[in-house]
Amino acid sequence: MTIPANAAEALSQLLGPRFSQSQADRDLHGQSETFHTAPPPDAVVWPLTTAEVSQVMAICQQHLIPVIGWGTGTSLEGHALAIHGGIVIDLMKMDRVLDIRSEDLQVSVQPGVTREALNTELRATGLFFPVDPGANASLGGMAATRASGTTAVRYGTMRDNVLALEVVLADGRIIRTGTRAAKSSAGYDLTGLFVGSEGTLGIITELTLRLHGQPEEVASAVCAFPNLEAAVECVTATIQSGIPMARIEFVDADAARAFNQASGSQMREQPHLMVEFNGSPVSVREDAEKFGELATDFGGQGFDWATTPEERAALWRMRHGAYRACLALRPGATAVVTDVCVPMSHLAAQVAAAAADIRAEGLVGPMVGHVGDGNFHSQLLVMPGDADELAAAKRVAGRMAERALSVGGTITGEHGVGIGKRPLMRAQHGDAVDVMAAIKAALDPQGIMNPGKVIPD
Amino acid sequence: MTIPANAAEALSQLLGPRFSQSQADRDLHGQSETFHTAPPPDAVVWPLTTAEVSQVMAICQQHLIPVIGWGTGTSLEGHALAIHGGIVIDLMKMDRVLDIRSEDLQVSVQPGVTREALNTELRATGLFFPVDPGANASLGGMAATRASGTTAVRYGTMRDNVLALEVVLADGRIIRTGTRAAKSSAGYDLTGLFVGSEGTLGIITELTLRLHGQPEEVASAVCAFPNLEAAVECVTATIQSGIPMARIEFVDADAARAFNQASGSQMREQPHLMVEFNGSPVSVREDAEKFGELATDFGGQGFDWATTPEERAALWRMRHGAYRACLALRPGATAVVTDVCVPMSHLAAQVAAAAADIRAEGLVGPMVGHVGDGNFHSQLLVMPGDADELAAAKRVAGRMAERALSVGGTITGEHGVGIGKRPLMRAQHGDAVDVMAAIKAALDPQGIMNPGKVIPD
Ligand SMILES: Cc1cc2nc3c(=O)[nH]c(=O)nc-3n(C[C@H](O)[C@H](O)[C@H](O)COP(=O)(O)OP(=O)(O)OC[C@H]3O[C@@H](n4cnc5c(N)ncnc54)[C@H](O)[C@@H]3O)c2cc1C
Ligand SMILES: Cc1cc2nc3c(=O)[nH]c(=O)nc-3n(C[C@H](O)[C@H](O)[C@H](O)COP(=O)(O)OP(=O)(O)OC[C@H]3O[C@@H](n4cnc5c(N)ncnc54)[C@H](O)[C@@H]3O)c2cc1C
Repeated sequence: MTIPANAAEALSQLLGPRFSQSQADRDLHGQSETFHTAPPPDAVVWPLTTAEVSQVMAICQQHLIPVIGWGTGTSLEGHALAIHGGIVIDLMKMDRVLDIRSEDLQVSVQPGVTREALNTELRATGLFFPVDPGANASLGGMAATRASGTTAVRYGTMRDNVLALEVVLADGRIIRTGTRAAKSSAGYDLTGLFVGSEGTLGIITELTLRLHGQPEEVASAVCAFPNLEAAVECVTATIQSGIPMARIEFVDADAARAFNQASGSQMREQPHLMVEFNGSPVSVREDAEKFGELATDFGGQGFDWATTPEERAALWRMRHGAYRACLALRPGATAVVTDVCVPMSHLAAQVAAAAADIRAEGLVGPMVGHVGDGNFHSQLLVMPGDADELAAAKRVAGRMAERALSVGGTITGEHGVGIGKRPLMRAQHGDAVDVMAAIKAALDPQGIMNPGKVIPD
Repeated sequence: MTIPANAAEALSQLLGPRFSQSQADRDLHGQSETFHTAPPPDAVVWPLTTAEVSQVMAICQQHLIPVIGWGTGTSLEGHALAIHGGIVIDLMKMDRVLDIRSEDLQVSVQPGVTREALNTELRATGLFFPVDPGANASLGGMAATRASGTTAVRYGTMRDNVLALEVVLADGRIIRTGTRAAKSSAGYDLTGLFVGSEGTLGIITELTLRLHGQPEEVASAVCAFPNLEAAVECVTATIQSGIPMARIEFVDADAARAFNQASGSQMREQPHLMVEFNGSPVSVREDAEKFGELATDFGGQGFDWATTPEERAALWRMRHGAYRACLALRPGATAVVTDVCVPMSHLAAQVAAAAADIRAEGLVGPMVGHVGDGNFHSQLLVMPGDADELAAAKRVAGRMAERALSVGGTITGEHGVGIGKRPLMRAQHGDAVDVMAAIKAALDPQGIMNPGKVIPD
């Protein structure tokens, strides 16, 4: 589609140079981090205020122009691609931290604030915002995808850490969901409904987030295991034992090799766990000891403690760099990224089955995982244009999803549906998909909000 | 309304004696714990299976008969009253614990299992289900009201502890929401939508719940404070300091008097905090010491530790008996129960203002609160039939709600909306109420599911 002239006129009048139809701006908003591709959107807007978002929506509703929200564009399932054309609303100019309420452990932010920017701003308060996808994503995008990351095992996901939202609906109406109270039973949980809706129900223009006290003491370590099963079974035992892990990450031998190559680390080419403990000095010592005993039971060797803040930062920077480090294992490759999440008792078998399947298909697919939640990824490296390899990767990804569903797990633990997981939605949800579709139709009857995402046809 | 003869015939054929139009059965399902009253429903059914619930719904949909879910009937805002007539579905015969999956820290239950029955069943596993409204409510009812209680400060509310649901929709369709994975980003959070929907969107026929490890060590105590402000400010400081309280309950002087009268306890007639610590022996000692120092700073005196399991059980039994104990302060009285929840920094001022208002209106209204969440109740005792007293109580309740809203709080932290809080929904949510209404209309187009509740006209 192209933008009708009178709509373009109205947007231009409203936003001046913050409405663009230039090829360069469109191309910048037509890219994806993974193998998903689509033509660029027809235009891009950069609103500064909620009122502007509302006016943009009203214009788009009037002309039935698709609208796609955009944060930092790091989502992995083609979420933000304009597959039916339309206008991308880039929210990165709405990047103000509005109100830090330390005594309430809360902050209000605009959607374009990134998690790193927020934590920089919070440093002096003794508080922090814990949710951390590897990428330095926008908080609006993180809410829209119901993101999590390494710390979810302790601090929860965006579902748990978003208290309230301001949302612009498809017709331009502005609503507020949630409250500043720690809990509420006042009607339907609309905050929870918009979190994870991937821009298909509304545009998030403000978020109220829960903050947490910076832990008095932090200790991190890496530990190698003789094999994948031993590492993962150690995780299951750790979670079942109730040790309040702040982080417990799985890294397979390929990923360790990628780290060594990218960061100059000297990890053995074996499966590892990367762990972190938060608390008082006494409780951290106690937790670390308990975990150490369990790890030893499962054959863990060569505990390497990161003791200084700098060493710790380097450790987690390395983990957060896993995606690019793994891509670099095959220069020029792109990736099919899987994201299943399963009940703990099935984790070891599921990881092992995935590894065997990747090998059997002859693919390179390093694996990492937020295994304390039962969530793991394989990053299946494929050369752009190699149709056979892509088909093999998709087969592996499909079987991982099927296996996860067969034990009551989910096709996506944290990345979301986008276009990539859409064909699997009915396999996971059955008729509940029709309920999602009914809600979508009720809130966006014209279907202009990020069409072609989440809800299957 | 009355049940059309052919509908009664169909229900009777389906359920035999588990369909009843007897006055006694109807009266039993026409009562409420508080001042709310309504005529009894036209009939009651006791399904045994999800399939039966589905068939009941199909019959009711066909004849446009209102359907009201019923657990233990302990909700406090007239939630389960058949204000437009219709059929009560009593779910208490669906009372089986279906599947304890200890390794996954999960259990699947039917909706008529009560929290106490579940915890009895779990005792040998080393696990427990933490959410505890004072009443021994049904887990279906607790999910439907998004209940919490004394332990929410540590373990969260029903929102946090329900992983998945089976739900029968208005037209009899059966859906499953959520998964057995710890987290998921696969589409809209329908589990979160049905939790707290008070039977207005569907009937919950199965729940998958998160379980927690029974703490290795538990310590409980009661401590008196010189005045209300000191007690509440101590709570705020405690939460801000990050001590992971398992429970921290406020009890005012009137409630302490009620306890003494009902349980033979010997509390000073002063404000108190009742606290509990869970963890390892080392961490419990550390947490208790830190709290002790804070309490002393705020003038806390006479720390009374409950050391044996029996003493602890007696302590919390007394707390859970608060509602009846307070009613007994005025024999024959019924209650208007308030339930605001506010950000921590406003808690002390809000509790103090409520106390002053109750005094100014000349009412008896003991106050208790799950203050670690910013949630507190006053139980305004009114004599049935005394219109002036009821009006005064409603004025006080209204002003508490207004004050809570003025600081970004909620009109109901845990009890829910029912009929009592319905007139305040727009004051809290503004236009977001229309979004709730749109969702309601999409899922229940004929409006047969618990009509007249939650969503205002
Ligand atoms: C290296 C790397 C590591 C990653 N690791 C993790 C991880 O550990 N955990 C994890 O969860 N994810 C991870 N991701 C995925 C990604 O970072 C998350 O999905 C993130 O939440 C996306 O945020 P964003 O700002 O980039 O959103 P975008 O990609 O810009 O958008 C994502 C979706 O949200 C919508 N959207 C964006 N902003 C708004 C808004 N304000 N209102 C409404 N809709 C909006 C878009 O339309 C789109 O559908 C990783 C990605 C990369 C590249
Ligand atoms: C002494 C006392 C103390 C209390 N303390 C607390 C407290 O600390 N915290 C708290 O949160 N609450 C408290 N409550 C309120 C009450 O216990 C809770 O609201 C509880 O969750 C209600 O459960 P129930 O089984 O009694 O539900 P009911 O009262 O039977 O029903 C409540 C609502 O849920 C619907 N419903 C019931 N079952 C289903 C189902 N299976 N599917 C769909 N809808 C259903 C009903 O239609 C109704 O709208 C207290 C009540 C009393 C009497």
